[in-house]
Order: sequence, then structure tokens, then C-alpha cells
Amino acid sequence: MPRYKILIEYDGTNFAGWQKQKNAISIQEEIDKAIFKFAHEKTEIYGSGRTDAGVHAFGQVAHFDLTKKIPDHTIVSATNHHIRPHKIVILDCNQVEMEFHARFSAKQRIYKYIILNRISPPTIQKNKVWHVKEPLNISLMLHVTKLFEGKHNFTSLKTSSCQAKSYIRTIDYIRISQDGDYIIIKIAARSFIHNMVRNIVGILRMIGNEKWTEEKVMFFLYAKNPTSQKITAPACGLYLEKISF
Amino acid sequence: MPRYKILIEYDGTNFAGWQKQKNAISIQEEIDKAIFKFAHEKTEIYGSGRTDAGVHAFGQVAHFDLTKKIPDHTIVSATNHHIRPHKIVILDCNQVEMEFHARFSAKQRIYKYIILNRISPPTIQKNKVWHVKEPLNISLMLHVTKLFEGKHNFTSLKTSSCQAKSYIRTIDYIRISQDGDYIIIKIAARSFIHNMVRNIVGILRMIGNEKWTEEKVMFFLYAKNPTSQKITAPACGLYLEKISF
Repeated sequence: MPRYKILIEYDGTNFAGWQKQKNAISIQEEIDKAIFKFAHEKTEIYGSGRTDAGVHAFGQVAHFDLTKKIPDHTIVSATNHHIRPHKIVILDCNQVEMEFHARFSAKQRIYKYIILNRISPPTIQKNKVWHVKEPLNISLMLHVTKLFEGKHNFTSLKTSSCQAKSYIRTIDYIRISQDGDYIIIKIAARSFIHNMVRNIVGILRMIGNEKWTEEKVMFFLYAKNPTSQKITAPACGLYLEKISF
Repeated sequence: MPRYKILIEYDGTNFAGWQKQKNAISIQEEIDKAIFKFAHEKTEIYGSGRTDAGVHAFGQVAHFDLTKKIPDHTIVSATNHHIRPHKIVILDCNQVEMEFHARFSAKQRIYKYIILNRISPPTIQKNKVWHVKEPLNISLMLHVTKLFEGKHNFTSLKTSSCQAKSYIRTIDYIRISQDGDYIIIKIAARSFIHNMVRNIVGILRMIGNEKWTEEKVMFFLYAKNPTSQKITAPACGLYLEKISF
């Protein structure tokens, strides 16, 4: 029974998220449906990360099993053909060992978050960036990234919907760069708790517009209480960029 | 009578182009209508470049006159408010001398063209790039840019709709760079003939996929005959990037 690993890109704007759900359109279900159309087998694909509604991906990875062997390039082209007009494409496919698991074998996940920092709203990048009007101080933002990097108890970043067993995570790095009015934040870790990237970005914004001090972030993280503050950055600026195995 | 210079960004996907026209929605007309809603004066804005249907702009420049003086920042925010939900925004506004003319005062126009060079179609960048499946050889493309740079008679690049008096233009530079699967071509000149950037990109693609040789491009340009070949790259990959005065 061959197992296939696929690399996926999608525009999350019109989806209720990665995860299959009742009465809503999901990326996972659309890929399963597209595969069924040419393989005539029911699959249940497993993704490396369950992106929320509106979150995009340049490099989501998933795996699935088929009883028959189909050439890798056929899986790519046939899935892309049958999934139209949805904004989802398979970029690559490889047959892998049965030990491979898109979620559990992942060693690092990199998320990218894009802020458009200017007065005027986005046009070309509508639904693809977070529009923040007030000028953000990137030096201040860069300075607090060290509070998040490394191994910490991130209970303070927990939102009500999160049901992880542990809130201890290790952030490999947070990088911030600027390209004109765009601020690009990259965050890498083996795994994240739900909404973790969007909550970190939300706090970085509060630092950037000088509403929060570095000290406040320290106390906030140290408290280890699930936050009641509405700090979560919107989904539209978030991209699942790359998974390493 | 104050004259205003505005910097404009737009997603050209759903427009029939910059230029006002009957029975079609244009960027020029939508801006005129938005200005009228708060200034209560009929304007006729002049753009630096008449972008075609589907062409985008990060830095279109236009000017218009009003009988009354309105603060620059009010023109930005009021136009942006009234133009919604169209994907057009004013990024900046300055009062300028009456001698300023967005079209005739421009010293350099920079266009950017984005090719997505991979098998799978675009998702996040749908309608924002030209999808070219066959691998393009960027070294070959870079090599022929020298045939276009400088002052030349570009009659061979003329398409039937073009009615310029002269086809002599000076291309300041053509730059090609790569970012993953994206190939970015920047072309700068004081002015262009109609479809000139898209025709140059179309030829660069024929060089990149090795269907045309450098010699063929030389003969093509030297012939100075309006082309009957369908080489024009699609509008969706083209961006009016910057105008210098």
C-alpha cells in the first residue's frame, strides 16, 4: 500500500480552514475529493498543520495512502486538474515509507506573517496581509523577539479553543524584515499551540506601536494564564511557509 | 486653482484599464467619481501611463485640478473612503505647480513583470502573475536584454492598436531577477509604445524556453515591421511600478 507525501499551496481566503468539517468547505476535503476523481479510492489526507479559516500556505505538507501505485507526476497533474477552480495546487509528490507521517514526522514548521504598514488599505494584496495603519517601530519589535525564542511555557498565549496537553514549546527563531511598507515576520518551531503565531504577531504589533512595553510582555508571559486580551492578529496575513522533516 | 498630484495603487483585474470608456469600468473614472463625492467638483484626472485591462499598479501617478483648496491628507482619506469597495487606493497626495503634468513631466517609467515559472498553476498569486510551465533559462534571457537597452527604432514591437508618431524609444535598463519560482523583470524608459513591455517580455520568454535564438531577436528588431506574431505576454503579470519626475 503506497504512501504519498504531497506539497501543497493554497489561498485560504474562501475556505473554513484546512480541517474537514460539516457544512463548510475545507482544503483537506477538496483534495480528498480531487484524488477520488482519478484514483477512485477514498483517502483521508493528513496535513502537517491545521491552518485556520483564511490562513494561506506556500508549503503545506500532507500524506495519504492508496492501494494502487500511481506515478508521482500523475498525482500532481490529476489533482490539480480535478481541484479547479479552487485555489489549491499540489506542487510536488513523492512516494514515501509507511513510517512517514506529515504531522508527527515534522521537525520544523515555518510560518510567515505579512503586515502592510501604511495609512491606505491594501488593493493588490487584499486578504493577503494585515493592514496596520499606525507606524510600527521595527527595532522595538526585533528587541522583544528574544523573549519568545527558546523553550518556554506559553500558557499565556493559549486561547479558549486550544486543547493541547502541554503549553511548553521551543521557538527556533523569530525574524523580522521590511520591504517598503511590508513587514515580514518569520517564526520557526517544531510545533505551535493553536493561534500561537497570530498571538505573537499581535503582541509584536502592540510593541511596535508602543502600546505595550517589553516589561509588560515579560509579565504577560510569566503569568502563565490563558489570555483574555484580544491580541490575535487576523488570519489573512498568515502563511504556512515550509515544513522540514 | 490648485493642482494635485496623486500616487495610486490598484489591482487591475476587474477593470477595463486606466482610461475612461463607455460601457466599461475604468480606474480613471472611479477616481473621478470618488473625488466628486467629497469635493463636489467634476475632475478629469490625467495619468502617467494608460495601463490596459488587467494591468496593475503599485505607483501610478495622476494629476487633477480643483477650484478649491483641500488638505492633501483629506484628499487621500476621502478618496479612499468613497472609492470602496474598488481595489484602488490613493497612497499620497501633494499640491503641485500648474506646470506639472503627470504624463508630460514624467522622466522615467518603471514597469515590473512577474512570471510564475513552474508546472502547477498559481493560487495565492492568481491574476497577478503570468504562469509559464516550461522551465525558462534566465541566463539566456539576461543575455538578450542588451539588444533592447538603449535608443532603438522599435517598430517591430508595434501592435495594430498602437498609433504613436514615432517608434524610437530609449530603454534605460532591463533587469531580471529570480525569487524561488518567480521571475521578476523590470524595464525602465522615459516612455513606451503600446504593449511594448508585454511584447519584450513575450520575446524574453521565447528566448528563455529556447524557441527563439538571439540571432532571431536581432533580425526581428532590425526588420522594423509591425509584428504579426502573437508574442504579447498577458496583462495580469504587469505592474506599473514607479514614475520619476
